[in-house]
Amino acid sequence: MIPRYSRPEMVAIWSPETKFRIWFEIEAHACDAQAALGVIPKENAEAVWKARNMTFDVARIDEIEAVTKHDVIAFLTHLAELIGPDQARFVHQGMTSSDVLDTTFSVQLARAADLLLIGMDRVLAALKARAFEHKDTVRIGRSHGIHAEPTTMGLTFARFHAEMARGRARLVNARAEIATGAISGAVGTFANIDPAVEEHVCAQMGLTPEPISTQVIPRDRHAMFFATLGVIASSIENIATEIRHMQRTEVLEAEEYFSPGQKGSSAMPHKRNPVLTENLTGLARLVRSAVTPALENVALWHERDISHSSVERAIGPDATVTLDFALHRLANVIERLVVYPENMMRNMNKFRGLVMSQRVLLALTQAGVSREDAYRLVQRNAMKVWEQGADFKSELLADPEVTAALSPAEIEEKFDLGYHTKNVDRIFARVFGES
Amino acid sequence: MIPRYSRPEMVAIWSPETKFRIWFEIEAHACDAQAALGVIPKENAEAVWKARNMTFDVARIDEIEAVTKHDVIAFLTHLAELIGPDQARFVHQGMTSSDVLDTTFSVQLARAADLLLIGMDRVLAALKARAFEHKDTVRIGRSHGIHAEPTTMGLTFARFHAEMARGRARLVNARAEIATGAISGAVGTFANIDPAVEEHVCAQMGLTPEPISTQVIPRDRHAMFFATLGVIASSIENIATEIRHMQRTEVLEAEEYFSPGQKGSSAMPHKRNPVLTENLTGLARLVRSAVTPALENVALWHERDISHSSVERAIGPDATVTLDFALHRLANVIERLVVYPENMMRNMNKFRGLVMSQRVLLALTQAGVSREDAYRLVQRNAMKVWEQGADFKSELLADPEVTAALSPAEIEEKFDLGYHTKNVDRIFARVFGES
Amino acid sequence: MIPRYSRPEMVAIWSPETKFRIWFEIEAHACDAQAALGVIPKENAEAVWKARNMTFDVARIDEIEAVTKHDVIAFLTHLAELIGPDQARFVHQGMTSSDVLDTTFSVQLARAADLLLIGMDRVLAALKARAFEHKDTVRIGRSHGIHAEPTTMGLTFARFHAEMARGRARLVNARAEIATGAISGAVGTFANIDPAVEEHVCAQMGLTPEPISTQVIPRDRHAMFFATLGVIASSIENIATEIRHMQRTEVLEAEEYFSPGQKGSSAMPHKRNPVLTENLTGLARLVRSAVTPALENVALWHERDISHSSVERAIGPDATVTLDFALHRLANVIERLVVYPENMMRNMNKFRGLVMSQRVLLALTQAGVSREDAYRLVQRNAMKVWEQGADFKSELLADPEVTAALSPAEIEEKFDLGYHTKNVDRIFARVFGES
Amino acid sequence: MIPRYSRPEMVAIWSPETKFRIWFEIEAHACDAQAALGVIPKENAEAVWKARNMTFDVARIDEIEAVTKHDVIAFLTHLAELIGPDQARFVHQGMTSSDVLDTTFSVQLARAADLLLIGMDRVLAALKARAFEHKDTVRIGRSHGIHAEPTTMGLTFARFHAEMARGRARLVNARAEIATGAISGAVGTFANIDPAVEEHVCAQMGLTPEPISTQVIPRDRHAMFFATLGVIASSIENIATEIRHMQRTEVLEAEEYFSPGQKGSSAMPHKRNPVLTENLTGLARLVRSAVTPALENVALWHERDISHSSVERAIGPDATVTLDFALHRLANVIERLVVYPENMMRNMNKFRGLVMSQRVLLALTQAGVSREDAYRLVQRNAMKVWEQGADFKSELLADPEVTAALSPAEIEEKFDLGYHTKNVDRIFARVFGES
Repeated sequence: MIPRYSRPEMVAIWSPETKFRIWFEIEAHACDAQAALGVIPKENAEAVWKARNMTFDVARIDEIEAVTKHDVIAFLTHLAELIGPDQARFVHQGMTSSDVLDTTFSVQLARAADLLLIGMDRVLAALKARAFEHKDTVRIGRSHGIHAEPTTMGLTFARFHAEMARGRARLVNARAEIATGAISGAVGTFANIDPAVEEHVCAQMGLTPEPISTQVIPRDRHAMFFATLGVIASSIENIATEIRHMQRTEVLEAEEYFSPGQKGSSAMPHKRNPVLTENLTGLARLVRSAVTPALENVALWHERDISHSSVERAIGPDATVTLDFALHRLANVIERLVVYPENMMRNMNKFRGLVMSQRVLLALTQAGVSREDAYRLVQRNAMKVWEQGADFKSELLADPEVTAALSPAEIEEKFDLGYHTKNVDRIFARVFGES
Repeated sequence: MIPRYSRPEMVAIWSPETKFRIWFEIEAHACDAQAALGVIPKENAEAVWKARNMTFDVARIDEIEAVTKHDVIAFLTHLAELIGPDQARFVHQGMTSSDVLDTTFSVQLARAADLLLIGMDRVLAALKARAFEHKDTVRIGRSHGIHAEPTTMGLTFARFHAEMARGRARLVNARAEIATGAISGAVGTFANIDPAVEEHVCAQMGLTPEPISTQVIPRDRHAMFFATLGVIASSIENIATEIRHMQRTEVLEAEEYFSPGQKGSSAMPHKRNPVLTENLTGLARLVRSAVTPALENVALWHERDISHSSVERAIGPDATVTLDFALHRLANVIERLVVYPENMMRNMNKFRGLVMSQRVLLALTQAGVSREDAYRLVQRNAMKVWEQGADFKSELLADPEVTAALSPAEIEEKFDLGYHTKNVDRIFARVFGES
Repeated sequence: MIPRYSRPEMVAIWSPETKFRIWFEIEAHACDAQAALGVIPKENAEAVWKARNMTFDVARIDEIEAVTKHDVIAFLTHLAELIGPDQARFVHQGMTSSDVLDTTFSVQLARAADLLLIGMDRVLAALKARAFEHKDTVRIGRSHGIHAEPTTMGLTFARFHAEMARGRARLVNARAEIATGAISGAVGTFANIDPAVEEHVCAQMGLTPEPISTQVIPRDRHAMFFATLGVIASSIENIATEIRHMQRTEVLEAEEYFSPGQKGSSAMPHKRNPVLTENLTGLARLVRSAVTPALENVALWHERDISHSSVERAIGPDATVTLDFALHRLANVIERLVVYPENMMRNMNKFRGLVMSQRVLLALTQAGVSREDAYRLVQRNAMKVWEQGADFKSELLADPEVTAALSPAEIEEKFDLGYHTKNVDRIFARVFGES
Repeated sequence: MIPRYSRPEMVAIWSPETKFRIWFEIEAHACDAQAALGVIPKENAEAVWKARNMTFDVARIDEIEAVTKHDVIAFLTHLAELIGPDQARFVHQGMTSSDVLDTTFSVQLARAADLLLIGMDRVLAALKARAFEHKDTVRIGRSHGIHAEPTTMGLTFARFHAEMARGRARLVNARAEIATGAISGAVGTFANIDPAVEEHVCAQMGLTPEPISTQVIPRDRHAMFFATLGVIASSIENIATEIRHMQRTEVLEAEEYFSPGQKGSSAMPHKRNPVLTENLTGLARLVRSAVTPALENVALWHERDISHSSVERAIGPDATVTLDFALHRLANVIERLVVYPENMMRNMNKFRGLVMSQRVLLALTQAGVSREDAYRLVQRNAMKVWEQGADFKSELLADPEVTAALSPAEIEEKFDLGYHTKNVDRIFARVFGES
């Protein structure tokens, strides 16, 4: 988690203050449930809530932990300092530290997911707006970095929208995966605590009870969560890569917005570098780097070992903060992306009609020329364009073997751009439910 | 994909024969749809189906590819050899190679997922059977590899069942992710082919039309698929790790089935090594190794580059074949696992009651002793057990500070195993819907 | 390991035949050493060598393994079938299977490394030749995909040479890492076999004795080996990415060689796609995918568990075969790369002098203008080029604030290309020791 | 980088203060070199050094960067504030930001490597001391977690020493890989700056000049560096795993030192958990997570893109700080590890002699029994021990087929532990050069 790549909203979820606040709420709700079951006195349960409006002193808790070497005991000791040892006597009864820690981690990840969904919605909104804005802005489609056939800028935005929408659906699933809580005791048997406590705490904290836990919530859930973030990060890289390509000097079909005061480089003032999307490419690598350790965290020894903990202290904040920042940076890039339709048209015409070769090939076949022959005819004329800078249409019109199969009007018609965009509305309807 | 770690059913999905069969079906269905649209003659579409009962000559196709350096063209050439060039004239019309290749890959991955689901169901059935068989087989729960509190072997199987059931649900999602087809032409605009062809082919091949494709189906789908396999593999490692621990010489609570004729080691004939679960641990690493390249495959250049292709030629078969094999090996291990309840009981009694310390701690607190004091009392007596091999219960009964708070009968009661298993039925009901 | 991405030389290293041949040699050399120590009869040791010219029947060994479920025992049984049970009686005495398996794996990896070094040498030779060929071929240097300052194509080749030379040195180190053998018995104590046997076998097999082994050779060695392959693969990706960029339609500064008969695409005959370098990009991902499982293989339980074995059966051949193929494919691409110097010059002139802005900035500073002011002056004129397509030099000559600091001749001089190439020889001397 | 897993010495290397100090030194040394070349006035170069004893105001630099959006310009602006705009006029002349940034990163990584080497030396010293302390402490060697043959605790420490020593040698190599600097201008051509400046700056900063750079130092160097850290981390995991196994309740051959006041768990006061080594296992995963993004950073576009930058801002500090902490935590664990030789002996005797079966097998073969028969005889008696808890030696002595081949004294001798430790000194001599 690097300050320059973080937004305060997400950072706040991972602050010590937030953590202790959630710990407190879990303990207090557990007391309520224990009181309702008659396990602890009602007044003690109520008394715990006094701390609701108090401030947990992070430095003091750290100080206690330095002695006890146990974070939850340190917190409980501090809580007792706040509400009085007598009132605090029944707090945490029958629970094990992981009941608090794991349930808290779930709350934090669920909240993080909620923030990420907001970020994704912003990206989706931007992509949709730009897709409709450029629905009919024709540009050349490229495979292998080589001109293929015309497409539109709107389709590019639309496919990124579809990809991000899939990412959103995956994140909703991933959120559900980790939104479980466990208050099940030392090895998950509820020996010392009634399952009703777990149910109450989970309901209050917006979680589902973990059907079967050990000392901890099973880590396949978290692995799935971080793997999902990794896939979303890769989609961000996908969009970033497209924009970086568009901004290349020789292509220049779009540019990241360049604020008037911004300096591109200390040495080359004219340069407008796609630094945001390059940065997003790097951030995607960082988010993805959480996937492997999360997968390695799944196989814990018996009812738990604590090897996962240090990993999660890092990747919990790091992956969510970085992805959150990246989503908003991406949204910003898309919202403000400067698109150059004229450059798109200029690029498309670079090879004077060559990109229409597929249509001509098809027309020849349909006119009865064998596939092999049609291929040969098209290739022959295409090579003249490629090697001598000839105009493809003119060459075709001058090739007697071609004109034997196709009339001049038919050849002309093959160079109509509308041919390539005729299904854009249908595709938009598939993606957006409207066009 | 290593022969010794593969099952023929899954290998068959990835054979050249299967691949060409699917290519053929896609081309033939596409011809049907084109004929229905009036784009190509009905009789040509029908003629293509002649090849339905013919055998595609893999060696011949390879031979042609060696010349053309293009696999789909090689196949189409061979198809024309089989059904006659005239009949084959309209095959592939308006399509691009990736229409065939990507749709085929989806069919293969969907079929692979179906096989994997069968493997998971076998694992689930085995886990459920063993869970009910050992629902009440008490063993010690361990955190950090250290004895904690009693649990049951049935709960161990049940939690693996819950984890695998989650894995199964994830795989169903992942299957849906990749079960899309695309027949959308060179850059996905349907310029040369009507979307109706895609709809027909997908319906016939059991796929959903990709809402918006470029030349290819977007690779975030595949990334999600392989990431899901990676999570399932990690769950296999989790189960394997538990069994490896149980089979340790000093623990010996369970053993992989050891067939009478089997030789454990060339040097130490008495050894029964958990080689299957160790192997599963390695196989899990292999399946997971597909995740990162799948994530790196997402960001293709513009409407496609072919960098993903070599990766998928490897991880497509490798990850599915290996996971398929691992699931059946795992099922076999679980089905035949030899469980030693007496050893479990013997291990649990190793520290003469020490594992009940949590109950005693709680009882002291409830009897009005402060948390800090209760902790001190329990720790004092526990250390005698630890260091001098004393019996925990006897020590407690002899400690006046303890007996001042708890009667001998109350202390006795804390060592009752039923206390720890009383909620097993409730947990089973959560996991299995029955208990 | 995919046939289409493999070369027979490397595949042969991993064949069962090669493996059994190495097993045999290790066993036979061990017998020699045992005989020299007087542990086994000399005539038995000599008799073993009878099998030197016999063929090991892989199918027969597999058949035996199907019964014994142990590969080394199966081999030894077959060896006894070949040379007679009496003669074979002392084979493998005091050894454990891993002595054979691990030492064999080292031999295979060392041979694989030797082949890889040959591949790297071919790449290095190609890069050097092309570097000198294009030492003075000026092209624009780009940062962020944006034109920066002139450089030469030779420098591009030269830096790839330097990178590959580093890779070669790393591979030499990595080869040394894994070129150790161990004949140390069940847990590495030499209880049943004298260290002299290990020394003799290693000397004969071209290995160093592992200073301290357990049942196995420590896996940090292998992790380092595969990590090194991963770094080299990334360097291949680096070169491939450069070429893919150069071949982009809008850039077209170089192209992969396109054989006359080759078909680029079934649909677009004019296309010449950089499919080899795209493929190399994917192959690099595959080689890298071996790194994480190799790292996960390091932490084995106690004196060994067998989890590493399945991983190595896959990544051993896969990573080396794929990298070997990639190196030769890369060499081929570089050797035959078609370079377009005129296009390089045309691209460089796209922004009419703008790339010289750094020089002008510097000249202004040196002429006494403050850094801030110089920056402002350069930026002001650069923006006119960018936005209005003006000529940079002309604008500068027309800007009184600029000409107040720099004379027309001085401005002129800033646009001399020789300025940028003046140190090429010095750099070449650093890289190649000659220029 | 998590405060609880970091040491201030390593954190300091990555502080903004340190970074700006290095930036300053690079700029100042560059001015010296430029003055020596006569490019800038000598007095300006000298004036820059005035800032040597000044404090760079991090907040002020951040403030400027918020406007300029360029960190190096922000720093230079602040430097001009400190030493006066006139004196600062020639600072950074002919340089590009990356000259400063990349050279600084090299200095930081080299310093980090130096600290890591100190940590490794501490680990090595601890391992050596414990190895000699327990050179003759016999314990059972285990393969597959199953008892195999006796070994000694000293050999365990010794093999970890050998592994860490390899790690140290790798780190020395890795340090050399990244200890290069570049002052070569916008695309690495030295167009605007003489190579002599680079040479001077590198010499002053303890670096080697990068033979050929672009705008940046090539990232294969950094990939190798982080890959090396990943291998070392895996070795830490290897040692940690051994200790975790030894501390298992059923094994208990060693324990992490447990300070008197330490609380193991809030619920189970008797527990002494191997939390440090579990934590090290997790930290190893974190360090390794830097490897993949570092590999992905190698392929930059043309003369550079900035995608690597955000990755390095994270993994630079994270991986080195975490590994540094882990090395010292590991050293601490080893130094204070509580070893239980009696428990080792007790564990070894668990299967009453069964672990000697290999010796008996060998003796039978040497006595003329066929390998197959010997195997059968040993297995027969071993199974009685395994299944009925019999004593292995007694069973052998009572088996007439065995005694037909071996005398009672010969059988007795097979159970002598000295047989297994006889080569320990030779192995120690290999590892430590002494024994």
